[in-house]
Amino acid sequence: MKFELQATDKFSNARAGLITTDHGPIETPIFMPVGTVGSVKAVHQRELDEDIRAQIILGNTYHLYLRPGIDILERAGGLHRFNGWKKPILTDSGGFQVFSLSANRKLKEEGAYFRSHIDGSKHLFTPEGVVDIQRSIGADIMMALDECPSGTADYDYAKKSLGLTTRWLQRGWKRYKETEGRYGYSQAYFPIVQGCTYADLRRESAKTVADLGADGNAIGGLAVGEPAEVMYDMIEVVNEILPADKPRYLMGVGTPANILEAIERGVDMMDCVMPTRNGRNGMLFTAHGIMNMRNKKWADDFSPLQEDGPSYVDRFYTKAYVRHLFAAQEILGMQIASIHNLAFYLWLVGEARKHILAGDFKAWKDVMVERVTRRL
Amino acid sequence: MKFELQATDKFSNARAGLITTDHGPIETPIFMPVGTVGSVKAVHQRELDEDIRAQIILGNTYHLYLRPGIDILERAGGLHRFNGWKKPILTDSGGFQVFSLSANRKLKEEGAYFRSHIDGSKHLFTPEGVVDIQRSIGADIMMALDECPSGTADYDYAKKSLGLTTRWLQRGWKRYKETEGRYGYSQAYFPIVQGCTYADLRRESAKTVADLGADGNAIGGLAVGEPAEVMYDMIEVVNEILPADKPRYLMGVGTPANILEAIERGVDMMDCVMPTRNGRNGMLFTAHGIMNMRNKKWADDFSPLQEDGPSYVDRFYTKAYVRHLFAAQEILGMQIASIHNLAFYLWLVGEARKHILAGDFKAWKDVMVERVTRRL
Ligand SMILES: [Zn+2]
Ligand SMILES: [Zn+2]
Repeated sequence: MKFELQATDKFSNARAGLITTDHGPIETPIFMPVGTVGSVKAVHQRELDEDIRAQIILGNTYHLYLRPGIDILERAGGLHRFNGWKKPILTDSGGFQVFSLSANRKLKEEGAYFRSHIDGSKHLFTPEGVVDIQRSIGADIMMALDECPSGTADYDYAKKSLGLTTRWLQRGWKRYKETEGRYGYSQAYFPIVQGCTYADLRRESAKTVADLGADGNAIGGLAVGEPAEVMYDMIEVVNEILPADKPRYLMGVGTPANILEAIERGVDMMDCVMPTRNGRNGMLFTAHGIMNMRNKKWADDFSPLQEDGPSYVDRFYTKAYVRHLFAAQEILGMQIASIHNLAFYLWLVGEARKHILAGDFKAWKDVMVERVTRRL
Repeated sequence: MKFELQATDKFSNARAGLITTDHGPIETPIFMPVGTVGSVKAVHQRELDEDIRAQIILGNTYHLYLRPGIDILERAGGLHRFNGWKKPILTDSGGFQVFSLSANRKLKEEGAYFRSHIDGSKHLFTPEGVVDIQRSIGADIMMALDECPSGTADYDYAKKSLGLTTRWLQRGWKRYKETEGRYGYSQAYFPIVQGCTYADLRRESAKTVADLGADGNAIGGLAVGEPAEVMYDMIEVVNEILPADKPRYLMGVGTPANILEAIERGVDMMDCVMPTRNGRNGMLFTAHGIMNMRNKKWADDFSPLQEDGPSYVDRFYTKAYVRHLFAAQEILGMQIASIHNLAFYLWLVGEARKHILAGDFKAWKDVMVERVTRRL
């Protein structure tokens, strides 16, 4: 994996860059749709490619490990062969889901013990093990196993937790360096900065992470309950330390406004389930504001979903029709909303990139943040 | 609406024809995907058109009348404008759903009283009223209101029921002749043959229907619990009487084998929820037999869904991946199965048509019936 920094904004820390992987290029800043179990929910791979113009998608290691299982993925020749997605894939380490989904999880020095949320079976994720698992999944970018405490964790807990995360990082990194790409293409490994909402812990973690010299670096443990302003502060603290010549990935963020604020602060990659999950509940993000398609006000609005929207569904379907689909609980409503929201997120980061390259990112961003947070 | 009979098989009653509507042509024999509330479940309109190659779809009057409601459909300019489907639409009369879905329904001479299955509100469908409703929906082909008794109804009930259906038919036909296309294009009205499993009642009903001189004629009340052989017998009895120069529509049928048997007996149009409903449960119909995608046997079968299948999903996705999607209850599984099954049904009637035109339908059909009923 290579990263070329193409431009940095004069009036902010926003950057435009180009990541090159063995599965193709990624223009940054980029948003990565989440394909939990190897499928971005309610969206065909062809639509992801042609209508949404996704350049990279995520897979969740926890979910893929449980279903279809690593054996099946290995025999398929990796996730790309299994699901037919030919562009880059990033996998998380599974740690976050162990804490949010599984029962009876137990954190020990050796790793995270947990029970499957599906059948209750017992499993252990170690820093080394999740490198092996992600190699078998065939991710172009793999993530380190970390502990991700809540956004309201106290200082003592945060400090102790960061200690564990750092020891796990050294172990994972060692395994990474001792092993090779599982399927003939290279696989990068991103360490993750933790430290909750404490600037000194974040700095300490960012230094450890930066010193590794990995192909890219991630910021985890944000958007987990802390105020948005605190999140932005932490991003600033961390990005002062993370090297400028490597991509920076802010994990699990966020709303369109969060995305723009993160880009302004020098973040290059983001992912979030919000466009798909909220979409399935009828919430559409647009360049003009947020629409709740369950609202009766759209029932007789026969104008296009979004006249100037970035994907064909925006002009093909009307607000009234999409509102009707949600009222009648039709699957097609979820399909349309998912395509629309993802296409909008990809459009948003694409526009950000254009404005960074054009040199007027800051002015554009200030207007957009106000627009995308309106309620229509 | 016009119908041109293009060929009749020498060795059976199978026919190839061409229906021309103001929304375009329909080559027969044809299968019509069911778009209950104005959406073929889990399928985009673009996919219906380009991947499935549907030539006409169905809307259910009962569902559309309740949601989004006739007022909204009128203000949209009809269902075509509302859902973006530009080719022909056929609507049923709503009678079948009144009996199968609604509570407290009551049949009177004037019409069918019922309560909405959604909110319990009271409604009345009359033969005249459902003409008006279907005119407002904007169907290219509208259906008469009828009673559809169970496949095991006794003779006395069947005879009495046919009497009511016939009186309703005369009233509906009168309203149809007194009114005009709601949106500037012509709307046909098909009467429906009833009479349960009793040949003399079916003959009597077919004569009444044939005498009307409608643009096309339908056979209802089959595939509602009676043995398949009895259904085939009734089709034969009725098609001896229904005019050969008008299309014959067999309502709500059926499996791929049912479709082929009906075509052999001179049926031109069919509809069924089976490809979509069974598809959403993981059942795939193919030219080589039936696959249950929930079955563990597909878990490590990395071959295409159907190597020689009629739509892109057949080659893009593997059996193992689709099996995984059903195991993980991913929406994409339902989307893939729905496209596959509908594309297969459209392929099947298209092949039937080719073989009718080529003169070897009967031999082809005997091979196919055996193939499509296998379990893979
Ligand atoms: Zn998120
Ligand atoms: Zn059916």
